[in-house]
Amino acid sequence: MASAAGEEGTVRFGIIGCAMIARKLSRAIGLAPNAAVVAVGSRSLEKSRRFLSDNGLDAAAVAAYGSYEEVLSDPRVDAVYLPLPTSLHLRWGVAAAASGKHLLLEKPAALCAADLDEILAACDAAGVQFMDSTMWMHHPRTAAMRELLSDPVRFGKLRTVNSIFTFVAGPSFLENDIRVKPELDGLGALGDVGWYCIRGILWAVDYELPESVVALRHPVTNAAGVILSCGASLVWKDGQTATFHCSFLANMTIELTAVGSAGTLHAGDFVIPAEERSAAFSFSSCAEFSDLHTSWGPLPSRHVVSSGLPQEAQMVAEFSRLVGGIRGAGGKPEKKWPDITRKTQLVVDAVKASIERGFEPVVVGS
Amino acid sequence: MASAAGEEGTVRFGIIGCAMIARKLSRAIGLAPNAAVVAVGSRSLEKSRRFLSDNGLDAAAVAAYGSYEEVLSDPRVDAVYLPLPTSLHLRWGVAAAASGKHLLLEKPAALCAADLDEILAACDAAGVQFMDSTMWMHHPRTAAMRELLSDPVRFGKLRTVNSIFTFVAGPSFLENDIRVKPELDGLGALGDVGWYCIRGILWAVDYELPESVVALRHPVTNAAGVILSCGASLVWKDGQTATFHCSFLANMTIELTAVGSAGTLHAGDFVIPAEERSAAFSFSSCAEFSDLHTSWGPLPSRHVVSSGLPQEAQMVAEFSRLVGGIRGAGGKPEKKWPDITRKTQLVVDAVKASIERGFEPVVVGS
Repeated sequence: MASAAGEEGTVRFGIIGCAMIARKLSRAIGLAPNAAVVAVGSRSLEKSRRFLSDNGLDAAAVAAYGSYEEVLSDPRVDAVYLPLPTSLHLRWGVAAAASGKHLLLEKPAALCAADLDEILAACDAAGVQFMDSTMWMHHPRTAAMRELLSDPVRFGKLRTVNSIFTFVAGPSFLENDIRVKPELDGLGALGDVGWYCIRGILWAVDYELPESVVALRHPVTNAAGVILSCGASLVWKDGQTATFHCSFLANMTIELTAVGSAGTLHAGDFVIPAEERSAAFSFSSCAEFSDLHTSWGPLPSRHVVSSGLPQEAQMVAEFSRLVGGIRGAGGKPEKKWPDITRKTQLVVDAVKASIERGFEPVVVGS
Repeated sequence: MASAAGEEGTVRFGIIGCAMIARKLSRAIGLAPNAAVVAVGSRSLEKSRRFLSDNGLDAAAVAAYGSYEEVLSDPRVDAVYLPLPTSLHLRWGVAAAASGKHLLLEKPAALCAADLDEILAACDAAGVQFMDSTMWMHHPRTAAMRELLSDPVRFGKLRTVNSIFTFVAGPSFLENDIRVKPELDGLGALGDVGWYCIRGILWAVDYELPESVVALRHPVTNAAGVILSCGASLVWKDGQTATFHCSFLANMTIELTAVGSAGTLHAGDFVIPAEERSAAFSFSSCAEFSDLHTSWGPLPSRHVVSSGLPQEAQMVAEFSRLVGGIRGAGGKPEKKWPDITRKTQLVVDAVKASIERGFEPVVVGS
């Protein structure tokens, strides 16, 4: 049974879990021109119903379920957005794919690459699209930055990248949030904000995996051993390097700096633009000292890229476009997205392994 | 024999060596209200004379010498500015101090801390002021940034620092410059631009030495083994971290980012302001996500600090003020400056040692 919306090419989403981030995605699905929420499931029917009313979803058009299974059994649901704690991604990601649902999975994608591979294998077997919910990838600013990074004259060859994503988690977060609970989001700050730092670095090197990763000593963990703050360095065989720092314990800072043989790119809010409808970055190229080295230039120029839709709605629209291509024209899932997810997870795993092995260099798996 | 200028409190400089950087300092000494160039010495009298005419120095007031010794023997010379290649710092730094000359020493201060200690001991024995020529320390912007970093409410406790200093050395530099010659400036990019990165990091942590340093794998060296590009991570026992990258092989980038528990400081030209008479930095404090995490703020605010004198002239003025205090009032040399130099050198040494020991962690000496 297809809804009228479905017949017109709209991808019908079921949301599994009512986390705060699900509110953001519910809004994004509503904003995307080719997507609609048709079902919400949580462990409690009451919670699902409250989610509908809290988020302006029409109870006549959107089913509220008291279990995740019911979302997966609903034939109206084309795709699932899964913002459950990371420890549940394996079970419910595989179940969604096995039910023939396309999968938009919240990050971190999995607790480890082995788990992720099971999810990806299930998606593969079912022929459904997989994408992780790394929203900034879909902002038009990201494409504008890529254009400059790819320019052999203005940027040249990448030499080094630094990324920082930190924010101050308040006392309640540090006590109660799933991201500090070993049984829920065991990767802590590394899986949450570190995921973005690593993705930013991989994006800058055009997804070439580093040779090895070394975690920085003295990561901060909570009493349960969950990472609250850590960092690492990454190296490539040809001398490219990257470093990052991620933390729940420092003022909100979201930086990506990529330095090439001829250019320098800097974005001070690359993961979440400080303003919703436009985002900036700075770029300099072929800068030189003045005579006597008393000044230098040209100074970085500021580029502003506006976005008709918020980046999370751009993401939903792109995911839905891919789903539409599979459903309508019998196309194949786009492999680019699971590939990028897997590389990100491999680096996350390597950082974690380096910490566990006493900050030894860890060769990044493949 | 004291010149009229000397009697009025002007510190009379002898410049030893006619490197490009000496032109910048000659101008700075002229601009500083309490300093004057009275002698220039190089291995060739002709070169010294040309330096005078090229730099608008009056041959009637400034002696041109065909040796370094003559500068040190000139009783009119109160202080020496020494921009010779690093491998000559030990010999001529010690000789300057032994001649009773105050010493403004170009960076990197020495090839290793053991050499530096001999220079500092000679300065100590002679009761002369020592300062290395790290100009940005003396820009009023640096004091303004320090004020914010010291603010327990707006910045809080420092968590992490990243610093980058790179520029593109052209073919002639990579072939001929003293900074790529093992027998002249054997520390290469680490001693040149890396010095500034390390100083920036130490400045941000208020000069607390890190516990250990790990160099990043795959530094780039030339055929003679001199570092053209490298990086390292630094950690402190309480979990503070820092990373840096320095290079002769990447677009000019001069970054210092310090993230604290409550604030973030960023300067995009901290070593050499892009414009001579004013310099900017950005600062944000207590930034938070909006509802649904679709934006965040407050955005970093931009602070502009103007400088009546270029930073190198500010440095000369401060050095001369200290020299004047010793000479006039029988004061003691200011220990702060040699202490900071020594800490910087210790970290430089540790990075070099880590590279030589296969990227092992190296405990920073004291």
